[in-house]
Amino acid sequence: MKNIYAIGIGLIGGSLAIDIKKNNPDVIIHGISRKQSTLDEALSLNLIDKKATLDDLGNADLVIVSIPVDATVKLLPTILDKISDNGLVVDAGSTKLDICKAVENHPKRRNFLAMHPIAGTEHSGPSAAISGLFQGKTNIVCEVEKTTFKLQEKALKLFSDIGMRIRYMNPEAHDKHIAYVSHLSHISAFMLGKTVIDKERNERDIFDMAGSGFASTVRLAKSSPEMWTPIFKQNKTNVIETLEEYISNLTHFKELMKSDDFDAIFNEMKNTNHIKDILNGIS
Amino acid sequence: MKNIYAIGIGLIGGSLAIDIKKNNPDVIIHGISRKQSTLDEALSLNLIDKKATLDDLGNADLVIVSIPVDATVKLLPTILDKISDNGLVVDAGSTKLDICKAVENHPKRRNFLAMHPIAGTEHSGPSAAISGLFQGKTNIVCEVEKTTFKLQEKALKLFSDIGMRIRYMNPEAHDKHIAYVSHLSHISAFMLGKTVIDKERNERDIFDMAGSGFASTVRLAKSSPEMWTPIFKQNKTNVIETLEEYISNLTHFKELMKSDDFDAIFNEMKNTNHIKDILNGIS
Repeated sequence: MKNIYAIGIGLIGGSLAIDIKKNNPDVIIHGISRKQSTLDEALSLNLIDKKATLDDLGNADLVIVSIPVDATVKLLPTILDKISDNGLVVDAGSTKLDICKAVENHPKRRNFLAMHPIAGTEHSGPSAAISGLFQGKTNIVCEVEKTTFKLQEKALKLFSDIGMRIRYMNPEAHDKHIAYVSHLSHISAFMLGKTVIDKERNERDIFDMAGSGFASTVRLAKSSPEMWTPIFKQNKTNVIETLEEYISNLTHFKELMKSDDFDAIFNEMKNTNHIKDILNGIS
Repeated sequence: MKNIYAIGIGLIGGSLAIDIKKNNPDVIIHGISRKQSTLDEALSLNLIDKKATLDDLGNADLVIVSIPVDATVKLLPTILDKISDNGLVVDAGSTKLDICKAVENHPKRRNFLAMHPIAGTEHSGPSAAISGLFQGKTNIVCEVEKTTFKLQEKALKLFSDIGMRIRYMNPEAHDKHIAYVSHLSHISAFMLGKTVIDKERNERDIFDMAGSGFASTVRLAKSSPEMWTPIFKQNKTNVIETLEEYISNLTHFKELMKSDDFDAIFNEMKNTNHIKDILNGIS
């Protein structure tokens, strides 16, 4: 592996570039971005060795696509058009069904591996990229059987070398479950932030009263709308389902409070407390 | 100050005991708890120097009450009955109105200072107590004018010595604002945890897909139901108001998704993004 192209060099693309370069010092990391300023920043942060454009992809051994999921759907067929027969393209999107569908009939489908490295934070852009981001994290791989075996092997070695565990899943299951354990958390945090900001708009120093608990619960409301809007759009059906269940649980909690049923309130919390054990496995 | 009594020796009481003892090595920390096992644990962790009972309070220079807020309301009059004219009683409850009301006509009202040191975490019990918990945190003091000036001074020195900033507020305002910046976060986290656990009950390894974002958003769902049920009960009206606004914002977000208005979804997130600046002030 000699020439790696990173399309999108933010938190995920940039962090992948750092760790892959560390394990493979001889590779050349080529950066591609719509924005010159992003490329300049990525160069100055040593995330990439060279600037490039889509027209350079012919000599790519690996192309890593880490851009908003709507851009991935649009661009992926073009990327596959341009790579050689031995090139591998992977994506890192937080949705998998629309992305897999976008290339299901592409003549180079076997050169593509659909992935979701679950390592996002609320930060974005080249300056958010860090070494070690993927250590101990899970990489979901979808439709592995549709990728040339040799290219699968190449990708899996690369990603296990940077510390990731691999799990296999079909795109439908990925999108359904990720709506619960990731997408819903983001909406929950954004709307919590909105509720408190709206209320306390004229009393800014009320936030002196906010402790680490509030900061933790609302942390994801710092996330990038550019990245998250297309995720919610592509995963609309699943996300709406999670929202309906969440709203129904909150409404039930409110009704229990209104009817002074604090024994039931206690049980609601007690029954959820074992999230402790579940979270123990998450860094 | 010689004899300090800690009634309740969990996260807050225990952490206060550690830091106060560090700054005042000559004081004797007496521990009081309903449970012998808590006292034994607190002794073995060196949080307290001695076990005590309510009948010993006559020689107390300071009594720190850090127990569930319903127990505080019940016990506070008895505690005031038992202390000397120079004794100071402070509480650390997450509600202030019912607690202040419980002693508003008590003959020793001037020996009580109502406080809320905002330093809780999702952990509880003596083993959760740590040094430095209060460093840089806010301590809300209510109805300061109702406490003897000399005792105010004593308390404020003690709490600024352990690193706290003091803010003054009336109990009604405290309970209203804390519902937004603390109580609502807990319900949001508990119900998020419930929604995901209910859905994924039969697919435990789905939680492999959960990243640090989910862990952060749901963290407060580890909190103690014993502590939080009486908080919700005492602050019922304010908490229900926050829940109604939160549910309304979530429902609006869902409706925007259903009607494919993703420009509005983008704006909802963009408008909340400045929570970044607000959170910068919170450790």
